[in-house]
Amino acid sequence: MLAGTAGFAAAEVALSGYAEIGILSSENATTARLLGVTAGDATFHQDVEVSFALSGETDGGLSFGAGIDLDETNVGLGDDSGTTVFVSGAFGKITMGDTDGALDWAVADAGALTSMGDDHTTHVNYFGAGGLDATFDNQVLRYEYSFGDFGVAVSLEQASNGSSAVGTLDDNVGIGATYSLDMAGTAVKLGLGYQTGTVIVSGDNPNTLDDPLTFAVENREATVRAGADVWGLSASAELANGISGSLGYTDTSVDGVGNDYSNLGLGVTYTTGALSLHVNYGSTDPEVGASDSSYGLAANYDLGGGAVVMAGYGSDVDAFTAGDQAQYSIGLGLSF
Amino acid sequence: MLAGTAGFAAAEVALSGYAEIGILSSENATTARLLGVTAGDATFHQDVEVSFALSGETDGGLSFGAGIDLDETNVGLGDDSGTTVFVSGAFGKITMGDTDGALDWAVADAGALTSMGDDHTTHVNYFGAGGLDATFDNQVLRYEYSFGDFGVAVSLEQASNGSSAVGTLDDNVGIGATYSLDMAGTAVKLGLGYQTGTVIVSGDNPNTLDDPLTFAVENREATVRAGADVWGLSASAELANGISGSLGYTDTSVDGVGNDYSNLGLGVTYTTGALSLHVNYGSTDPEVGASDSSYGLAANYDLGGGAVVMAGYGSDVDAFTAGDQAQYSIGLGLSF
Amino acid sequence: MLAGTAGFAAAEVALSGYAEIGILSSENATTARLLGVTAGDATFHQDVEVSFALSGETDGGLSFGAGIDLDETNVGLGDDSGTTVFVSGAFGKITMGDTDGALDWAVADAGALTSMGDDHTTHVNYFGAGGLDATFDNQVLRYEYSFGDFGVAVSLEQASNGSSAVGTLDDNVGIGATYSLDMAGTAVKLGLGYQTGTVIVSGDNPNTLDDPLTFAVENREATVRAGADVWGLSASAELANGISGSLGYTDTSVDGVGNDYSNLGLGVTYTTGALSLHVNYGSTDPEVGASDSSYGLAANYDLGGGAVVMAGYGSDVDAFTAGDQAQYSIGLGLSF
Repeated sequence: MLAGTAGFAAAEVALSGYAEIGILSSENATTARLLGVTAGDATFHQDVEVSFALSGETDGGLSFGAGIDLDETNVGLGDDSGTTVFVSGAFGKITMGDTDGALDWAVADAGALTSMGDDHTTHVNYFGAGGLDATFDNQVLRYEYSFGDFGVAVSLEQASNGSSAVGTLDDNVGIGATYSLDMAGTAVKLGLGYQTGTVIVSGDNPNTLDDPLTFAVENREATVRAGADVWGLSASAELANGISGSLGYTDTSVDGVGNDYSNLGLGVTYTTGALSLHVNYGSTDPEVGASDSSYGLAANYDLGGGAVVMAGYGSDVDAFTAGDQAQYSIGLGLSF
Repeated sequence: MLAGTAGFAAAEVALSGYAEIGILSSENATTARLLGVTAGDATFHQDVEVSFALSGETDGGLSFGAGIDLDETNVGLGDDSGTTVFVSGAFGKITMGDTDGALDWAVADAGALTSMGDDHTTHVNYFGAGGLDATFDNQVLRYEYSFGDFGVAVSLEQASNGSSAVGTLDDNVGIGATYSLDMAGTAVKLGLGYQTGTVIVSGDNPNTLDDPLTFAVENREATVRAGADVWGLSASAELANGISGSLGYTDTSVDGVGNDYSNLGLGVTYTTGALSLHVNYGSTDPEVGASDSSYGLAANYDLGGGAVVMAGYGSDVDAFTAGDQAQYSIGLGLSF
Repeated sequence: MLAGTAGFAAAEVALSGYAEIGILSSENATTARLLGVTAGDATFHQDVEVSFALSGETDGGLSFGAGIDLDETNVGLGDDSGTTVFVSGAFGKITMGDTDGALDWAVADAGALTSMGDDHTTHVNYFGAGGLDATFDNQVLRYEYSFGDFGVAVSLEQASNGSSAVGTLDDNVGIGATYSLDMAGTAVKLGLGYQTGTVIVSGDNPNTLDDPLTFAVENREATVRAGADVWGLSASAELANGISGSLGYTDTSVDGVGNDYSNLGLGVTYTTGALSLHVNYGSTDPEVGASDSSYGLAANYDLGGGAVVMAGYGSDVDAFTAGDQAQYSIGLGLSF
């Protein structure tokens, strides 16, 4: 049993949990292979997570904290391993680890609500405005500061952990700004960001686990990176009638000829009582070749007490197979 | 330090712990090889576990929850990874994950008490009434409902995560029922179950880890499965004088000629004050070839406060070596 | 959210956390290779840990407990896996697992304070007085007892988990004693220890992880061990003026000619208000060949509430490369 020390004023560790139960179906080739199913078959799904939130305050009034999950155990040297650590005070807030770069921090994602398979936020053209984040090990250092309705942030992700070797790629450096305003009862937030550094052009993303079943035999593809810069902007709004939405755009310039591309994203969410409905649309327009688009749907029904009925759909979740490969899930999301 | 929020009425995460300290000795060939000892040598043993119990309730009165241990971290796609999630209400209870199928749920195991090496419940003919559970990934979906002295359950374990491919083996489908009655001060419980689907005939069980030290060089044996069905029944009783016991039987029919077998199990436990003694016997009777039997012993002495002195013995713990290979352990089991 | 059960008198699980944020730079060749940097480059560093302390008491007044961290999950058979379990009472205290042998328990380390990279306590000649601990799997059983100003301990680390096979090396058996006294306001503690058994002479230490990036291709070196015995002593003192320090010596005799060596360590710490400064020096004097020395520095500034500014330096952290390879770190250590 747990030793509660209620009223403890100093540094503390707070626990929370999350669980899922339901059915998931994906036409993504890797997912189907991992599950041993034919693409599109429906599979039982469950997931359980426990999170630890660490928080404290210095005698001088600085706040500090950190976050780690049950499945983020051994924090690797020079890596974030999914964790974050922060310090904040009158000077602003510094965060290091698995956190958004300044562009992603400023520019609004198109998604809202939750689904078991993240179906509606992982379709291939989903507008996540991640910029150049995670080109390297995704250990990001971000400083943010807010004054009145304005917020600003700068960020840095070291290339190769700060290696000084000749030929080391450029660090990812970002800057972002937000402005919140009220337009006749509609809360509006504008975001603008710029990031310069390096992008992954092709090959394996070092932040994505290879298929453990085939790792030993597959040819691990070399990660090919190139210099790049991105700018992006977004406008999001919350109307008084339960409707909210966002519109965003990013433009990525990659070294070499014909490598540039832009992304557009639109999301709309409607909430009435316990029910929330969401749709988002994203498109990618490359400098050379045809543009592509995909969309996501989500429905949440709040049962109270932390339980939510969740349904999600992504119109195309496989970037490596021609045509559209859909994914859906339906089940319960349980927060503790 | 911990942030206790005593009196919190909503969803919560409860912590518990368990530790062991003592000596263990096994004649099992794999265990001896893993430890680098000669079969039967006595080895220091310790183990520490922390468990998280998540629980909540919807506004409409449904209960829900989940369980995960410290060493069950990354829940694999389509897998249970040792975790469970449940939802219950007036309609009954639904559990998904690492849980018993309906036959195992209904038919009583022969074992009782605890030992560090689970010596008394892992001997080769131990009567665990597992039926066809864990033929695949052990992610079981079970529905149960009780009314008065009766309980019923049905269960499903997907074959190959629900693959629709031609040649996919049969899902494991189970049904079970229990009836509790009082016979002149003796609490009696009867269990009856049936399960049909697929069984592992030979080769590696995908739910059992291979020896990590030799995994790279050993030939991983292909898992051979065949269609099967099982029925089983049990009677267990708790007498007023501190004696309890159970008797169970399962009969397994496997496709093909000469593959059937039956299992019989008997367990008796006696408790007086802080001391409990247990013995169980199990036998396997194949359609072709000689039958085999083994037994287990356990003694527990309760020191109070969560500490128990535990001794265990299994008469044969190695199914792959001729003759009997015994295992014993003695030490403390500490619950927190 | 957390379920606090304040005032629970029985066995309990207490949570604590620790996080680091800052910059680290190492000239150690393996560290640089792991990070993909040129030796000495400065790298972002963060780390987050959560620890579980389990404690309880029997009805008869015996205390018992165990400790495990978030990244110590699956406790291996016959291994300590970083955990400890203990039982204590009027008879003394028994600890099993990842704990000091009796020599290390008695003889004071030269180090004090903390740094992100443990720079000041991992330089190659740091005086840690570990004796023969961790020659095998580092699962140590230690018994300790104190009476008045005296403390004594004996310890045992099984060779090859207690294998009875011919040719098995000697267990590590240790004995240690401490004596505390007050000399005109200066608290003095003397330590004396002896350990006999087996030492690692060359090759891979089985308790040290190989570089995971190159494990598949590197030739794992065979671990070469030999019989050995060590004796050691130390004197440590805490002066009333904020100065504390320790002086220690160990002498290790290894089977064969010319294999012996001795270690000397000196550490001094000065604390004034929130600031603490520390320096330690260690030297190794082999029977054959030149002696070597290195030193460590640490500065801690306590911000209160669990936050400490930490700087550390080690003059040589690479035993396998000629010359001195330094390491330093600076950042925040946050305790929750």
